[in-house]
Amino acid sequence: MKNLLIIGAGRSATALINYTLEQARQHNFFITVADADIDLARQKVGDNPNGRAIWLDASKPNDRRDIINRHDVVVSLLPPQMHLEVAQDCISLGKHMVTASYVSKQVFRLGDEARQRALVFMNELGLDPGIDHMSAMQRIHQIKARGGKITAFYSYTGGLVAPESDDNPWHYKFSWNPRNVVLAGQGTAQFLEDGKLKYIPYRRLFRQYRLVNIPGMGEWEVYANRDSLLYREAYGLQDIKTMFRGTIRHKGFCDAWNALVRIGLTDATFPIVDSDKLTYHDLMEAFLGISQHTGSVKDRIAKLIETDPEGEIMQKLEWLGLFSKRRIKVKNATPALILENLLLEKWALQPNDKDMVIMQHVFEYEINRRKHKLTSTLTMKGSNGADTAMSRLVGLPLGIFVKLLLMDKISTTGVNIPTMPEVYEPVMQELEQYGVKFTEKEE
Amino acid sequence: MKNLLIIGAGRSATALINYTLEQARQHNFFITVADADIDLARQKVGDNPNGRAIWLDASKPNDRRDIINRHDVVVSLLPPQMHLEVAQDCISLGKHMVTASYVSKQVFRLGDEARQRALVFMNELGLDPGIDHMSAMQRIHQIKARGGKITAFYSYTGGLVAPESDDNPWHYKFSWNPRNVVLAGQGTAQFLEDGKLKYIPYRRLFRQYRLVNIPGMGEWEVYANRDSLLYREAYGLQDIKTMFRGTIRHKGFCDAWNALVRIGLTDATFPIVDSDKLTYHDLMEAFLGISQHTGSVKDRIAKLIETDPEGEIMQKLEWLGLFSKRRIKVKNATPALILENLLLEKWALQPNDKDMVIMQHVFEYEINRRKHKLTSTLTMKGSNGADTAMSRLVGLPLGIFVKLLLMDKISTTGVNIPTMPEVYEPVMQELEQYGVKFTEKEE
Repeated sequence: MKNLLIIGAGRSATALINYTLEQARQHNFFITVADADIDLARQKVGDNPNGRAIWLDASKPNDRRDIINRHDVVVSLLPPQMHLEVAQDCISLGKHMVTASYVSKQVFRLGDEARQRALVFMNELGLDPGIDHMSAMQRIHQIKARGGKITAFYSYTGGLVAPESDDNPWHYKFSWNPRNVVLAGQGTAQFLEDGKLKYIPYRRLFRQYRLVNIPGMGEWEVYANRDSLLYREAYGLQDIKTMFRGTIRHKGFCDAWNALVRIGLTDATFPIVDSDKLTYHDLMEAFLGISQHTGSVKDRIAKLIETDPEGEIMQKLEWLGLFSKRRIKVKNATPALILENLLLEKWALQPNDKDMVIMQHVFEYEINRRKHKLTSTLTMKGSNGADTAMSRLVGLPLGIFVKLLLMDKISTTGVNIPTMPEVYEPVMQELEQYGVKFTEKEE
Repeated sequence: MKNLLIIGAGRSATALINYTLEQARQHNFFITVADADIDLARQKVGDNPNGRAIWLDASKPNDRRDIINRHDVVVSLLPPQMHLEVAQDCISLGKHMVTASYVSKQVFRLGDEARQRALVFMNELGLDPGIDHMSAMQRIHQIKARGGKITAFYSYTGGLVAPESDDNPWHYKFSWNPRNVVLAGQGTAQFLEDGKLKYIPYRRLFRQYRLVNIPGMGEWEVYANRDSLLYREAYGLQDIKTMFRGTIRHKGFCDAWNALVRIGLTDATFPIVDSDKLTYHDLMEAFLGISQHTGSVKDRIAKLIETDPEGEIMQKLEWLGLFSKRRIKVKNATPALILENLLLEKWALQPNDKDMVIMQHVFEYEINRRKHKLTSTLTMKGSNGADTAMSRLVGLPLGIFVKLLLMDKISTTGVNIPTMPEVYEPVMQELEQYGVKFTEKEE
């Protein structure tokens, strides 16, 4: 019997735990789910005889190593900054390790050691990053096998709310980490266009969005990700002329989000002392300049961000309660944290709400000097607020890969992301059974 | 004989070294100037019999401690992040320590230990911070002694170029750290106005400047400093209604600097790979959006930042050479570093150039319900590009204070900034002999 350790039983673990427990008897696995909250772990494991829940404070090295040592494969769902310690344990104890997180430089540097010990360290195996890598690589390899030369690659992903549960003027609810949504894009986005590097600083990011058509779903807005070129080498696209990765949002979102950015509400650099003694109205007033002394705070904010005081943008801000005289709930918080706290309340996915994930890749390529265009689109809706499309699309690839690994079907050792056929072919194939299927359009 | 150690013989040390060497014979001091560049230290000490130059790599703890141990007072002109180690040495070896730098939290925490050992750790003893504290405190104490209640305090400082050496369209040259100029204001500025906190995010900082009149020098622009409230308690102004600190620039500067900010040239968050293979023209083009495809790069930039293509702002950008096809000189540099490198060349203070420092405090106060306003202004010009007003105004307060300390005239132990009469009275008085005199205007 092979032993799997899953560290972390939170939101992102559900689909992974369910999948691996389902597979456990047939394939003779035993699954340990470890969490600092033992009740949460117990609830996720249920009464499955091939699983057990244990208490673990992963920040305690001795406890952690003791548990890791009794397993064959470790999936770390811990916060990214803790992966390095787990990875070092896995190296010294000779265990494979799997995560859905970005590979940090420090983890990347363990590659040689992992390879020397014949260990598999697979990362970025969720949705984005994860399914985006696998689905893109599948098509890139197919196009290249046909003698095609890829000239442009666009890739967009959005974690959204399904139209049937979309009941707010922002047309957005959280299906994942709210903090990442609030801080998205700070810095400068870079991408490649017609062979030239292009930069979009934060102040223009939500203004310079694109419109993309999703078959059957209409037009959506896409803003550029921080670094569209991150995977140029990993994808084998060194000579590509255009490469752009972006985030999908509902029409109207970017202009309204840009209003929050312009006001200053996404700043995470300074705490507002005694913020819990202010109202949202006070906070908005504090961002108004000294020359804007007449009219209501709402009208003065509209003037500050150069928008129609009765228009859609101001309606969205008002719906959030930014002009209300309600007290802010968090103490000594940055504007970004105050905003995150407010949005958590306003954009919460309710128990009966369905989320929706959209992913689209567009490849422009040439075969024998003829131009082609392939559009590959995935849309998936969740069942409810707990069984979300997001959690399935993060958990299932992890689960399927772990099964393959426990069945000794993975030969790629070292620190990697899932760009190789031996990973993406079986994972993508099995994902289809769970409704994860890209629709293709050739032009 | 008392022994003074000055660590660091760079630009900021000249006036301090000259002053202390001048005083050395009369007061029986001996001055050691330590630097990793022994020639630089030798050149600054000259053949003064009361001084010597020594080589020191301050990052080597044993060497550093060995030298500190042979002195009574240490002035650290090292980069701020090194002050903590020097401070710890001074604690354990029982030496006084003086800097012109901001007090870090870590150094602040040494306060009790310093006091217990009867050690004087005086910081922020240059121009800004330094003379600003001393000159403000002198007036605050005077007003309070007259029974006045201070309702508003404005304080502005600028390190500028003197009108007679002002020969460029930006009307600015570097007399101090260029990096600080390029990165100034990133984050959100906060100040207090009519009892309410006010915030100005970076994107509006150089648009929301004020105009202030400097007697005899006309109108200047002032943009808000990061935290105007930093010294509210230290100055004893807990109940003040309005408190604003700012940086002085020539008229027209802020709008043009805002253009650089808007384009994205002050971003220090990402390196541009192979930036030395690009021209400034390429760099500017990279910041243009995809919808801005017609016209010259210069015209498209003017459109992007919504300014007249033939106006003053574009003339300033063009004068910098931002549209030239000259190669960028720095490799894998952030936009901010590329800009800094270009400005270093364009805004260099030439050997015969004179710099100029302006500092102004405005106090609004009430005595017996009558309103008063006191404006206190300092202007000072340098002699040339080496003997700058800036270096004198940073070095002289340090030197005068060190003399007082070596003469056992300072009783305030612990970690402090110069807000107390026993420091600011004698220092400000002696500074007058060097032409550092505030002009007062009562209204």
